[in-house]
Amino acid sequence: MPIVKAEDLETLASRIFTARGVPESDAAWIAALLVRANLRGHDSHGVIRIAQYVASMDKGETNPTPEIRVLNETPTTAMIDYGIELAIDKARASGLSAVTLQRTNHVGRLADYVELAALQGTIGLMWVNAPLSAGVAPWGGAARRLATNPHAVGIPGPDGPALLLDFATSVVAEGKMRVKFNRKEQAPSGWMLDSEGRPSTDPQKFYGPPKGSLLPMGEHKGYGLALVVEILAGILSGTGAARDGIGPVRNGTLMLVIDPRRFLPLTSFHEQVADLVAWVKSAPLVENSKGILVPGEPEARTEADRRANGIFVEDETWAQIQAAERGASRASPFQT
Amino acid sequence: MPIVKAEDLETLASRIFTARGVPESDAAWIAALLVRANLRGHDSHGVIRIAQYVASMDKGETNPTPEIRVLNETPTTAMIDYGIELAIDKARASGLSAVTLQRTNHVGRLADYVELAALQGTIGLMWVNAPLSAGVAPWGGAARRLATNPHAVGIPGPDGPALLLDFATSVVAEGKMRVKFNRKEQAPSGWMLDSEGRPSTDPQKFYGPPKGSLLPMGEHKGYGLALVVEILAGILSGTGAARDGIGPVRNGTLMLVIDPRRFLPLTSFHEQVADLVAWVKSAPLVENSKGILVPGEPEARTEADRRANGIFVEDETWAQIQAAERGASRASPFQT
Repeated sequence: MPIVKAEDLETLASRIFTARGVPESDAAWIAALLVRANLRGHDSHGVIRIAQYVASMDKGETNPTPEIRVLNETPTTAMIDYGIELAIDKARASGLSAVTLQRTNHVGRLADYVELAALQGTIGLMWVNAPLSAGVAPWGGAARRLATNPHAVGIPGPDGPALLLDFATSVVAEGKMRVKFNRKEQAPSGWMLDSEGRPSTDPQKFYGPPKGSLLPMGEHKGYGLALVVEILAGILSGTGAARDGIGPVRNGTLMLVIDPRRFLPLTSFHEQVADLVAWVKSAPLVENSKGILVPGEPEARTEADRRANGIFVEDETWAQIQAAERGASRASPFQT
Repeated sequence: MPIVKAEDLETLASRIFTARGVPESDAAWIAALLVRANLRGHDSHGVIRIAQYVASMDKGETNPTPEIRVLNETPTTAMIDYGIELAIDKARASGLSAVTLQRTNHVGRLADYVELAALQGTIGLMWVNAPLSAGVAPWGGAARRLATNPHAVGIPGPDGPALLLDFATSVVAEGKMRVKFNRKEQAPSGWMLDSEGRPSTDPQKFYGPPKGSLLPMGEHKGYGLALVVEILAGILSGTGAARDGIGPVRNGTLMLVIDPRRFLPLTSFHEQVADLVAWVKSAPLVENSKGILVPGEPEARTEADRRANGIFVEDETWAQIQAAERGASRASPFQT
């Protein structure tokens, strides 16, 4: 299993995309986002996705050179950057903004987008659905009906984001199961059901056939939130809500940006957030605790470590990346 | 343990509040909200709160006749109604609105407020913190640092709300522990830690002394969301975020209302939501499933049953209510 330096991985990924006609700046942006996910410890959203993106381009499902319009077009990842910038500008002008994105490809980690809002002193909220990539059972149900429908929030701090929350409304993101599968490991109990709706820890029984399903986080609560994400991100954006069929990855997105300066001075906001963080961290630890961290902090720690020591890439993923570089599109076992 | 008809319970509650100087229309509104919580099966937010509200008024912490102003005043529950109406009006005019409420008393079930938004064809989102009522441990921590910080979403349908989501970011709302305590029952495992940060199922060890803590829902995810609620609802509203000390119940609130008509025709919105609901309900059931329900549906079922058959009130709560009616303020064992 190779350990690769971040810059080398980024160059490699960028080269794979430009070889398929993606403009250089877009390829660099996608590569940077993928490797950033690995750097921050979210391998599920990192270079493991290269094979999926390449296959999607080779099948003609993803347009490597989209013409980006504000309404009703088919944007690719790069457009999200544009979308969040638009939302930030509108929030600064009006205090509050809502921008939807329709039928985007896999948008990657939402934290990267709400981070952009936080870096500009605004609060970013984001909800993303994937109507044709159901992998999650509704609470009480035994079959796939919903995607992992994540929700993210970025909170500004005086020196960069104070807090970057990004979580799937399933117990885990589908990609975390993919990492277990590629590493031939068992999943922890409580993650998934097999195709009959029985609890299971075997990633093979998730991918099937026949396919199993992921469980929602927090039981009925995560299920309820996943439905809300379908409506906010899917229906409002025009992408549509979850429905029958497994199709290409298409994300619907709602981004909501709030300018905290409309409510209080930014310095007071920063101080109060810092006080809150200090207050939660003042609690004694439970046994075997890894410490009390705020969202975004584990990622920052992992990034420092992986920048210094390189990124571990499992054999299966590495083989897929090498195949993509050779111009082939190695068959991925994943339909989602 | 008495079983009381909804109307009788409402009349009784209303009388208790008017006897303490609450104007009749406000008392009727508070009583209706409390009994509605019981009707919908959320006893934790129902008449069990009468003793708490009365004690708070008797101590002078809650003003029974507040003068409600839009900025920087001390509103009581009735004001929330005003707040959500304001947010709905603004959203209808501008597509989107954000309204904060500062230092309110215990606002009750958030579902009742986002329901008002949904009834008027708008999407209501609501976040509420309680900076001086910490009962929840941060993930990895062994002591109380955060309140149960709920989040609610109301989605409009053609004949009333299509979906009413309202959940605590802790595994359960504190009131559910209070119900277990008043009924002298054990809590399920996974709800709480004792004062040393060890898992426990004894509600007495939650209320202490020494006090234990509730766990966040979905482990680190609910903890992250609880921090976000502190910032959105607490800091933006001017109520403040969680901090040291247990004080009177003061809620900070952010209500965000979105007019879906700015994104698509309302009929299309309704159709797509109905299709989504039909799609998730089409899944086969897991063993011992109670069925696949959408948020708000269990409450509607319970309401039909309890309207017909009356509301069960446990002895301890009934004794507190009777004491409140006699003009006394029976000491509550709860500081939160």
